[in-house]
Amino acid sequence: MSRLRGRFRGPTSGEMQRFSSSLDIDLEMLEDEIASSKAHATMLGEVGLLSENEVKEILSGLQRVHRELREGDYRPGPELEDIHMAVEERLSELIGETGGKLHTARSRNDQVATDVRLWLKRHLTSLVDGLEELLQVLLARVETDGRILMPGYTHLQRGQPILLGHHLLGHAWPVVRDRQRLLDAGQRLDECPLGACALAGTPHPIDRRRTAELLGFAGVVENALDAVAARDHVQEVGAACAIAMTHFSRMAAELVLWSTEEFRFVRLADEFTTGSSIMPQKRNPDAVELVRGKAGRVLGDLMTLLTLVKGLPLAYNRDLQEDRAALFDAVDTTHDCSRILAEVWRTLEIDSERFEEELGRDWSLATELADALVAEGLAFRRAHDLVGALVRRLEEEGRRISDLTPVELARLHPALASEATSLLDPRRAVERRVSLGGTAWSEVERQIELIRTRVGLAPQ
Amino acid sequence: MSRLRGRFRGPTSGEMQRFSSSLDIDLEMLEDEIASSKAHATMLGEVGLLSENEVKEILSGLQRVHRELREGDYRPGPELEDIHMAVEERLSELIGETGGKLHTARSRNDQVATDVRLWLKRHLTSLVDGLEELLQVLLARVETDGRILMPGYTHLQRGQPILLGHHLLGHAWPVVRDRQRLLDAGQRLDECPLGACALAGTPHPIDRRRTAELLGFAGVVENALDAVAARDHVQEVGAACAIAMTHFSRMAAELVLWSTEEFRFVRLADEFTTGSSIMPQKRNPDAVELVRGKAGRVLGDLMTLLTLVKGLPLAYNRDLQEDRAALFDAVDTTHDCSRILAEVWRTLEIDSERFEEELGRDWSLATELADALVAEGLAFRRAHDLVGALVRRLEEEGRRISDLTPVELARLHPALASEATSLLDPRRAVERRVSLGGTAWSEVERQIELIRTRVGLAPQ
Amino acid sequence: MSRLRGRFRGPTSGEMQRFSSSLDIDLEMLEDEIASSKAHATMLGEVGLLSENEVKEILSGLQRVHRELREGDYRPGPELEDIHMAVEERLSELIGETGGKLHTARSRNDQVATDVRLWLKRHLTSLVDGLEELLQVLLARVETDGRILMPGYTHLQRGQPILLGHHLLGHAWPVVRDRQRLLDAGQRLDECPLGACALAGTPHPIDRRRTAELLGFAGVVENALDAVAARDHVQEVGAACAIAMTHFSRMAAELVLWSTEEFRFVRLADEFTTGSSIMPQKRNPDAVELVRGKAGRVLGDLMTLLTLVKGLPLAYNRDLQEDRAALFDAVDTTHDCSRILAEVWRTLEIDSERFEEELGRDWSLATELADALVAEGLAFRRAHDLVGALVRRLEEEGRRISDLTPVELARLHPALASEATSLLDPRRAVERRVSLGGTAWSEVERQIELIRTRVGLAPQ
Amino acid sequence: MSRLRGRFRGPTSGEMQRFSSSLDIDLEMLEDEIASSKAHATMLGEVGLLSENEVKEILSGLQRVHRELREGDYRPGPELEDIHMAVEERLSELIGETGGKLHTARSRNDQVATDVRLWLKRHLTSLVDGLEELLQVLLARVETDGRILMPGYTHLQRGQPILLGHHLLGHAWPVVRDRQRLLDAGQRLDECPLGACALAGTPHPIDRRRTAELLGFAGVVENALDAVAARDHVQEVGAACAIAMTHFSRMAAELVLWSTEEFRFVRLADEFTTGSSIMPQKRNPDAVELVRGKAGRVLGDLMTLLTLVKGLPLAYNRDLQEDRAALFDAVDTTHDCSRILAEVWRTLEIDSERFEEELGRDWSLATELADALVAEGLAFRRAHDLVGALVRRLEEEGRRISDLTPVELARLHPALASEATSLLDPRRAVERRVSLGGTAWSEVERQIELIRTRVGLAPQ
Repeated sequence: MSRLRGRFRGPTSGEMQRFSSSLDIDLEMLEDEIASSKAHATMLGEVGLLSENEVKEILSGLQRVHRELREGDYRPGPELEDIHMAVEERLSELIGETGGKLHTARSRNDQVATDVRLWLKRHLTSLVDGLEELLQVLLARVETDGRILMPGYTHLQRGQPILLGHHLLGHAWPVVRDRQRLLDAGQRLDECPLGACALAGTPHPIDRRRTAELLGFAGVVENALDAVAARDHVQEVGAACAIAMTHFSRMAAELVLWSTEEFRFVRLADEFTTGSSIMPQKRNPDAVELVRGKAGRVLGDLMTLLTLVKGLPLAYNRDLQEDRAALFDAVDTTHDCSRILAEVWRTLEIDSERFEEELGRDWSLATELADALVAEGLAFRRAHDLVGALVRRLEEEGRRISDLTPVELARLHPALASEATSLLDPRRAVERRVSLGGTAWSEVERQIELIRTRVGLAPQ
Repeated sequence: MSRLRGRFRGPTSGEMQRFSSSLDIDLEMLEDEIASSKAHATMLGEVGLLSENEVKEILSGLQRVHRELREGDYRPGPELEDIHMAVEERLSELIGETGGKLHTARSRNDQVATDVRLWLKRHLTSLVDGLEELLQVLLARVETDGRILMPGYTHLQRGQPILLGHHLLGHAWPVVRDRQRLLDAGQRLDECPLGACALAGTPHPIDRRRTAELLGFAGVVENALDAVAARDHVQEVGAACAIAMTHFSRMAAELVLWSTEEFRFVRLADEFTTGSSIMPQKRNPDAVELVRGKAGRVLGDLMTLLTLVKGLPLAYNRDLQEDRAALFDAVDTTHDCSRILAEVWRTLEIDSERFEEELGRDWSLATELADALVAEGLAFRRAHDLVGALVRRLEEEGRRISDLTPVELARLHPALASEATSLLDPRRAVERRVSLGGTAWSEVERQIELIRTRVGLAPQ
Repeated sequence: MSRLRGRFRGPTSGEMQRFSSSLDIDLEMLEDEIASSKAHATMLGEVGLLSENEVKEILSGLQRVHRELREGDYRPGPELEDIHMAVEERLSELIGETGGKLHTARSRNDQVATDVRLWLKRHLTSLVDGLEELLQVLLARVETDGRILMPGYTHLQRGQPILLGHHLLGHAWPVVRDRQRLLDAGQRLDECPLGACALAGTPHPIDRRRTAELLGFAGVVENALDAVAARDHVQEVGAACAIAMTHFSRMAAELVLWSTEEFRFVRLADEFTTGSSIMPQKRNPDAVELVRGKAGRVLGDLMTLLTLVKGLPLAYNRDLQEDRAALFDAVDTTHDCSRILAEVWRTLEIDSERFEEELGRDWSLATELADALVAEGLAFRRAHDLVGALVRRLEEEGRRISDLTPVELARLHPALASEATSLLDPRRAVERRVSLGGTAWSEVERQIELIRTRVGLAPQ
Repeated sequence: MSRLRGRFRGPTSGEMQRFSSSLDIDLEMLEDEIASSKAHATMLGEVGLLSENEVKEILSGLQRVHRELREGDYRPGPELEDIHMAVEERLSELIGETGGKLHTARSRNDQVATDVRLWLKRHLTSLVDGLEELLQVLLARVETDGRILMPGYTHLQRGQPILLGHHLLGHAWPVVRDRQRLLDAGQRLDECPLGACALAGTPHPIDRRRTAELLGFAGVVENALDAVAARDHVQEVGAACAIAMTHFSRMAAELVLWSTEEFRFVRLADEFTTGSSIMPQKRNPDAVELVRGKAGRVLGDLMTLLTLVKGLPLAYNRDLQEDRAALFDAVDTTHDCSRILAEVWRTLEIDSERFEEELGRDWSLATELADALVAEGLAFRRAHDLVGALVRRLEEEGRRISDLTPVELARLHPALASEATSLLDPRRAVERRVSLGGTAWSEVERQIELIRTRVGLAPQ
């Protein structure tokens, strides 16, 4: 029977034990639970609530419990609802009555709040590392392949020629913000709840700032009730993950697209593709399909985190136990996806000549004509109309922009005749776009440095 | 190296294997995978694509693979991506080349589609059983405690006196519909995809109706591409679970409320409450808090199921692998919650006298006065205004409706004076409401029978 | 000051009036409100609670209120919270005290529940019509263009050649189920709540079945509390819409894809594309992009409908007012999208020769070779391995399957040499797949009839 | 016919125009559209792309268009898809060809991106103001009523006595973080996209930093493709609103609860309650019910914002048009709720004596006994067990903690006898909890100042 059931007439039923236990998911927080218990014991000793010997006993007992649980040598019974009771129970078995002193001036409410924040501090660091690695890989690809010409798409229709580097930076900048969002979230949650107890604090003369310091927190949660009831930090991390996953899903969707027979722009490395059980020729871009699909998973996690808190009165309610499965899944999934994407981008084969020739022959250069007319003094809207009509006529005649003769160009505007070669060369079109953030290589290069500086990445 | 990688130069990386494997979750479908493989082999034998001996070998081989995987005697290596490859691989190790013949006229796309439907057929049956058990418990409570008087709440304000039985039926009817929704979903998905192969069917002379029959399906999916690409049955089940969980969350929220010191209307059995690690007196209604919280979890699952399919081109895409974790979690969670709730209701102590006296003294009977005035010929809106003003005056005087003297009642309308006792008796007020679906006991009794008949429940 | 505030000391504030008013959205239910009020009055007359004259006065008064509100001649003040109070108020202004008798034996709780169900009955009919129209257009396209050859995709990689008709049926069948889901939902909600009053029924001798009959409902909600508290029918409709929208989003995503310069398989009619404000050549597939985007919108609506009910105690709570904006948006959006998609499909230009030649030259026929080897007695897995290795070798040599010589085929298996022409013809490959639901034209034709019969569509 | 359809053969259909138009929602951004057009024109003039006269004409033309659209004097036809085309069209009608020059070096893609960010800058300021006002009201309540004793709840069971001020701070701190989250989001989005054009920048010599400066942006979006394709700032704001709304829903749910007949702890001001159409006595807490319900609405909005971007390739896709309805609704709803809550709290009547007496008689002081035993040297777990057993015994005897005699207390521990009065006084129990963040008044006061300082609120 659980140690907390002194006022009850009987144990919970087996079915209820299974239903309510959080032990499985809690084991992910084992090292956090041990760390927070150690810090609490140390602080209790420092303020005189435990003797030096008691602290020693508890610390070495916790060490052993840690090892036993990690190695599976100690398997908590089903009547122990969570990691907190399991550790305390085993500690008391090992060191006797002193084990029962560890729970002075704390409660499971502040313990779990502390453990989750410690878990987040550890895992957000990994996740940010994952994003930085992904950024490094993207920037390295920009450096090596960034001058490849490709169609710039809007509405998935070819719009204007751009550099692959410009496009990849369009994927990189959102990751820069994802990283900052996670750092902001990490900073906001970097406060220690331990010592808040159930919701009201304690009459014992504890030192919460000292516990926080021992655990590496930047500060303490200032209100004991807020310390145990709030889950907005968990929701914020979930939201930052969900947003990052929508970015990942956009990269992934494009890589699926670019891998098609029709686009043929890239080829995923063998290790990120899989075969078909029935069609022998297939090279399926499974890695990125899964990344795209997992965006749905993390969105679901976020929805769980938001919905479960909706309408709950203060302070702690057991509903909140459900936050961990969704939170851990969101963070771990986002981390895994960042690493897989980094490897996918790193090992990707890109066909540098796939689009070069086509871009001279398709309609991507229509805007060049309009912009050239503007440079000659036409109103943009008028220039747009003229070129629109030209496109329609050419299309009806089965011709393309590259078929335009200097005479025809001169009909649009006399000055265009002499610029034909330059106007209708997609690479020159790209290099003309030197406006801030434009697709010209100089702007691409500028941004590589800017991202490295802002994120603090070493040059490669 | 995987059996499917004949056209590749190397294996997938370890990280990619872990990232893309679905083996863990697939093991939940082990018996479905074995069943569908057996049915497929039997059908292949019947149409002459396998010899009688080959079928025998395969069936007994599958039997053994089943046992080995169930008992953990065979542990598939990480290079085997899913249950389908694991079973086929092990089968071929056991019975040689014949094992490779089992994959004739099928693909993993239709296999997984079949397995998930078989899993659903099994688990929806359990889930419907769970709902029926919950209904039985609710109806039994109506029969034993249904005559207890309680305040009927709207906006959580006391509105009119009602019977507990009327209230409990307000929880039971939605469960009746939840059950029907799940049955509808179960019927809609009761079609066998096997034999659809990758997406196009097969040139081999298979008999898909026979496979369906062997597996107990009511029919076949009529289009091979639809068979492998569709996930709306999965979403529909997810939605039906999410809706059921919102109903469960309403019951749960009320039980939390009714367990408070302030309401004191019910007392959860000890086995569904837990203590506090710090506050020795606590009896927390954890079971129902968790049910309420898990509503958020299943909502998240549904969101995953919807989002991951959004915008996917036909036919199968690997994203769809992500459906199982969410689907299984939604169904299992809903099932667990139905069982816990049934036990909670069954073992609940209800304080039959908690509200009886109060109801005569609070404002719940104001509508009686208005309705009585209408019976005397006043327009309802006029009656409502008169009683509203009366309530306000009494409130200002610190009195209650039960303090009204016959003289005062007569001032409202002469006829009321003589009816005072009856009017201001909450039980009589309840029994006056014999309109169809009203709170009178006769209407409550009628509904008990109606639900039993509609759902096919045995009288208790 | 509102008519309901007899017991209050003052009006609500202007800001609160704006915050809490549902008048704007309620006006969508104007005709339902009038219809339900008329039916209620008629029934009250029939059971003797109103005189014949009173009924007449009320009915003609309601007629006038209907016209005034529809035409904007009467504009309810901000203190009238909702359509119910606005209609009753105006009615009383027009016909005096008798207007106040209409509210006998009803409350706003059952009124709004009734109006929403009436709204749904009307709009689900339109929505089902929209889906049937979409199905007709899809089937007509199958009939006219269904024999066009195209690559069948899995993982967006070309898998096997299929008929466009097979593919379009892969989109049609889910719509058949969407329709059935909406009909199921429509049937489940076809019960009249009116007369449930606030939550407890009424002492007045009303006839709820008669009201239901007058309004065209198939039955009544059997429990008064359930009648006002339940919103699962609203959630179910929201879920059915969200599922339909994921199907629409899949069609839409494919049409976006097929419209690209790279796929060039279809061309949307001009009326469903738009130009660019800057790039004169652009033909953007806006119609289908919006359909895809609106899937997100309806998913959000569903999430609202589920979350807002989570954890609410019985019976009516004002939170539930928020259901209408989301519900109406979900139904209207799904309806609009069904109509736009029908027109898009109807007016689509399809390039019938786009893929025909390519399919003979790409890798789509690899499975044919494997299946042919199986027909010669090889185990499928062995055949798959052999062809996989062949594909890899050809790829390394820069060759394609169509380059295989009879000698090379004979090396795979002697029997293949003579079948080369047939084997490597994609149209014959398609026509070999006559298994139930396979891509052969006979199977496509069979399904056209089957869908028409099941849905009750006229042959075109 | 739209100005952009030079290359098309005909207009879009009426149904398509209605389906695709965003004019209604765009009108919310009218002032942003005008401001960004003015800044763009000014910059074009400064860099020499427009003459001084042209700039003047355009600026005064825009002024007039602004007024006409605001007053409804100009009503754009349905063929004008959005605010951008409507403004440009009307401008050209008013000032002729020069109007067509305004679109030089911009596109609708960067215009809408700019307008949405300007809208957000304006509305986030209001929203932050709303949160600060709410904080001021909460802090003022803490100052005036913070010493009221109430039960501190966990699991909605009474745990320990706390001060109302401690509880209110438990609501205030999350709002402090909500505010900071919105400020972070506001800072991250404070970059101007204008001049990014369609996705590639422009060859014209524009000065994007100058445009940004004119519009009050802190910087520019550094990559043109990112500028038009990214929506993570929109999602981040949506997430911050959704998180804030879960906080609001918790306050709201408690106020509903506290307003019940059973809790009777508060009474909402008349202006935030409404009556019943049928039950004359009702005072329903509609304002806070709606706040709770609207949390579901904003969660749905967030889900829309996340799902619609999932899997979209770069750069702009028309799907993104759907972001505005959800975004504007999320921000406006959160703002409205903050204001309503502020007024609700400000005008709330709180019953200062409701719980004072009860707290001495219920079980809330059990933890005091346990803590007192710890102070006498017992291990906490042992103390918890002893008190738990005591509670159980008292409960069986129908007694309460306050019934304990000094003799009985002495049996727990001799030292307790003399402390009985102090131990069993809830106010003293509260004041003993002076640990950091504990419920003692000194800690409450400390936090008032801390929040005022951190948020920059004036002392009241």
